[in-house]
Amino acid sequence: MKHDSANGAAVRQQFNIGICGMGTVGGGTFTLLQTKQAEITRRLGKTLKVTHVASRRQNPAFDTSSIRFSTDVFAVADDPAIDIVVEVMGGTEPALPLILRAIENGKHVVTANKALIAVHGNEIFAAAKRKGVTVAYESAVAGGIPIIKALREGLAANSIHWLAGIINGTGNFILTEMSLKGRSFPEVLQEAQALGYAEADPTFDVEGIDAAHKLTILAANAFGIALQFDKVYTEGISKLTIADVNYANELGYRIKHLGITRMTEKGIEMRVHPTLISTQRLIANVNGVMNAVVVKGDSVGSTLYYGAGAGAQATASSVVADLIDIVRSSGDGTAGNPGNVPSLAFNSLRNDIPILDIDDIECEYYLRIAAQDKIGVMAQISQVLMNHGINIEALIQKEPDHNATGEVVVPVVLLTGKVQERQMNKAISAIEALDQVVDKVTRIRVELFDGEGN
Amino acid sequence: MKHDSANGAAVRQQFNIGICGMGTVGGGTFTLLQTKQAEITRRLGKTLKVTHVASRRQNPAFDTSSIRFSTDVFAVADDPAIDIVVEVMGGTEPALPLILRAIENGKHVVTANKALIAVHGNEIFAAAKRKGVTVAYESAVAGGIPIIKALREGLAANSIHWLAGIINGTGNFILTEMSLKGRSFPEVLQEAQALGYAEADPTFDVEGIDAAHKLTILAANAFGIALQFDKVYTEGISKLTIADVNYANELGYRIKHLGITRMTEKGIEMRVHPTLISTQRLIANVNGVMNAVVVKGDSVGSTLYYGAGAGAQATASSVVADLIDIVRSSGDGTAGNPGNVPSLAFNSLRNDIPILDIDDIECEYYLRIAAQDKIGVMAQISQVLMNHGINIEALIQKEPDHNATGEVVVPVVLLTGKVQERQMNKAISAIEALDQVVDKVTRIRVELFDGEGN
Repeated sequence: MKHDSANGAAVRQQFNIGICGMGTVGGGTFTLLQTKQAEITRRLGKTLKVTHVASRRQNPAFDTSSIRFSTDVFAVADDPAIDIVVEVMGGTEPALPLILRAIENGKHVVTANKALIAVHGNEIFAAAKRKGVTVAYESAVAGGIPIIKALREGLAANSIHWLAGIINGTGNFILTEMSLKGRSFPEVLQEAQALGYAEADPTFDVEGIDAAHKLTILAANAFGIALQFDKVYTEGISKLTIADVNYANELGYRIKHLGITRMTEKGIEMRVHPTLISTQRLIANVNGVMNAVVVKGDSVGSTLYYGAGAGAQATASSVVADLIDIVRSSGDGTAGNPGNVPSLAFNSLRNDIPILDIDDIECEYYLRIAAQDKIGVMAQISQVLMNHGINIEALIQKEPDHNATGEVVVPVVLLTGKVQERQMNKAISAIEALDQVVDKVTRIRVELFDGEGN
Repeated sequence: MKHDSANGAAVRQQFNIGICGMGTVGGGTFTLLQTKQAEITRRLGKTLKVTHVASRRQNPAFDTSSIRFSTDVFAVADDPAIDIVVEVMGGTEPALPLILRAIENGKHVVTANKALIAVHGNEIFAAAKRKGVTVAYESAVAGGIPIIKALREGLAANSIHWLAGIINGTGNFILTEMSLKGRSFPEVLQEAQALGYAEADPTFDVEGIDAAHKLTILAANAFGIALQFDKVYTEGISKLTIADVNYANELGYRIKHLGITRMTEKGIEMRVHPTLISTQRLIANVNGVMNAVVVKGDSVGSTLYYGAGAGAQATASSVVADLIDIVRSSGDGTAGNPGNVPSLAFNSLRNDIPILDIDDIECEYYLRIAAQDKIGVMAQISQVLMNHGINIEALIQKEPDHNATGEVVVPVVLLTGKVQERQMNKAISAIEALDQVVDKVTRIRVELFDGEGN
C-alpha cells in the first residue's frame, strides 16, 4: 500500500486486489485489470493492482509469476496487504466461508456468485454491515449490464411497479433458435452444449433455477425486501414444443423465458416461466444469448437494459466496475474530495485526439437518384460509382414517375458499401453531372454498427 | 440542518435543496421530493428537504407556502441553509452565473440543462473541481435513462468504441409516424406541436441541435475528452421525404435521427443525422417519443439503454437520483460508514409484504387443447371458460392432425383475458374432464405488461 501524505492526510494511491478462482470469470478479471491498468487509473485517480491470486492449481494461461499465488483461497482473505477480495469460484463451499472471513478481516468483497447471493446474501450483507465493508455483486445478474446499479442508484427516485427480464442466455438462445428456425428443444439444447453455452447438466439453465437466483436478487433490490429464493415460482422451458412456439408466432407473440416480479396490492409476485410477449415489445426481439431487463418505475415509466448476460469479458466488466465503485466510495478523508465520480468520467481529459471533420468519416450510404427513362442510365451510374471505388450492395429501380417539375423520371435507389464521405461527395457530384440524371441526389448515411446481432 | 452528534461525529440527517425554476422539470422535481420523501429517506438514511424555491413568479400549482420563496434565483445560491442547488430553468442567462455562484458558495449543483453543459460545461466543471463540489447532470441526456451513470460507472472497465443514440424524442415521434403510417414530415410536425411534443419553433429538435448538445455530453463521457459542441456535424430531419422513408423500409431499414460518436484510428467522429438502420436492430424498433442509446465497449460488447427521454416525471427521476448520489457520496466522516449504496437498495428492508403463491397471481393465458374432431367441441370449451369468468381474446382452430398416441385431434389454440391462476387451474381441470378433450391442456402465461408501447 502506498500512501501520499501531502496535506498531512493519508491519501491511498493503490488498492490491492486478491482474486479467488481463476476460471472463466477470474481469468477474465485478471486480464482486464492487467491490460486496462493505465486507463482505470486515469478514471479513478488511483491504481487497482492484483497482488494475490488463489486457485486449486496454477492456470498456465495467466502469468502470475510476479504476484503471490496460493492454492488456499483463505490465504487471500487473511492477506493483510489485500484491500478487496474478488470471489469468482462459484458454489457455496468454500465461497461462503471465504467471503465471511474476508468481511471479518475488514475487507471489501466483489462476487459474481448469483446462487450464493440469492441463497446466503442476507447473512453476507448483515455481516458486511456490521463490519462497515461493501459486498458488491453487479456481475451476479445479467453479466455486463449495469442493472443492479440502475435499480439501486439510477432509478432511486422511483417506486418500482414491476420488472421482467430475459436473464438466462442459454435459455434465450434455445428459444430463439426454436422460434426463428423451427428447431426442436432437444436439438437446440445439444447444439448449445456443443457451443459451450449450456452445461453438460443443463438443469440450472433450462429449468429456470439460474434465472430464479437472479430474479431473487432483482426483486430484493426493486422493492427493498430480503432475498427470498425459496419463494420464487420456477418453471423451465424443457417441455416447450415447436407447435406452441409456432402458434405463438402466428398470434403475434414470441415465447421468452422471463423472470417477473411485480408489486401488487396483495403482495409481491416472483416467478420464472415461459411467457408469451407481443412482438411489438422490444424485449420480445432480444435474441440469442443476450439478456435484457425491463423495469417499470412510477416516475420514469418503462426503461430497458440490454447486453451480454455471460462470458468472461462481459462479466469481468461488471466485476471491475464494482472494484472502481468501492474505491470511489471509500473516499480519502481529505477535505474537498468527496472521492466520487469525475464530471466527465475521467480524472484527466485527453486533448490529443482530433474530432474528425464529416468529410473524414466512413460509412455506407443510401442514394436516391432521379434519372431520365432512357436505356443505359443504370450503366452510367454504376460506372461512376465503380470509378470512385464504391460498391453497390443493394438496388431498387422503380417504375417511371413524375418529379416535382413534372418531368418523367425513374427513381434509382441504392445502398453502397463503406466509403469515406469525401469520396462519396465526389461520386455524387459526378452522378449529378450526368446528362440523364435530373434533380439533386438524395444521400442518407447508413449505420451497420459492427455487423453484430441486435 | 439537523445534526446527530452520537459518537461525537457530526452525522448529517437532512440535506436542504433549493430549486431554481418551477416550470415542467422544476415542478416535477418539487412534487417528486414531496411525495417520495419517506421512501427516499428509507433508501438514503437521510432526508432530502426542499427549503427554498425560486422562480420569476409563484406557480399556484405548487404549495410552497411553508418554505422560502424568491423571485431572484441568486437568493438560492446565496442561501446559507442550502446544500444543493437544482437548476432547472434552461437557457444560459441566468443559469450559467447562477451555477457558478452556487459553486463559489461551496454548494453542489444538479442541472437538467443540456445546452448549458454542452456549451459551458468545461468552465463549470473546472470551477466545481476547484471548490471540491459536484455538478451532476444525469437528467440533461435522455431524460430518465441513467445513461451518464452507465458510461461513467457501470461501464468504467471498458474502452468505449462507439455509441449511437435516439436522443431526441420529438424527432423520433415524427420519424415513427412517417415510417409506420406513411404521413409527411410537415403533417406530423404539426401534430407534434399540437400534442406539446414539439415547440412552436421546432428548430432545436428537428434540425438536430438538441441532439448535438446531448451527443457532445455523451462523447465527452465515453472518451474522456473535453466538451466540444462546436465540432459536432449536425443534419436535421426536415428534408426527409416519405419516398425515402418507404424505400428504406422496402430495403429492410428504418430511418432514425441518430447521434453517433466513434473512436477511430484517425480521431473521434461526432455526428447527428438521419440514418438507415437494419430493422433487425433493437434500436431500429424504438418508436414514438422514446429514447435509446447503444454503447459498444471493448469488454462488455454492445449494451442498450431505453426509456423516456423527456417529460416532467422522467426528468425529475434523474434529477432526484443525482441528489441521492451526491448525498451518498458526500459521506459522514464516521468510521465504518463509507456513505454509499445499501446492499439491497434500501437502508431498512420491508418484511411486511408477503410473496404471493403462484395460485394468487393474475395474468393472461395461452391454452392449447387437443379436441376430438366432433361438432360442438368449441361450444363446450367456450362454455367452461365462460362459467369460470374467463374471456377468450383470440382463437385459432387448426386442421385435424394426429396426436402422440395416433388419435385424430383438432388443436384449439386460444388466448384468454386476465384471470387469477387459481381460477384458471379450475377451468383447465374442467376442460380436461370434457369427453371430447384428449391429452392434457398446454398452458403458457402471457404478459401484456401495462399495455404500453415498446
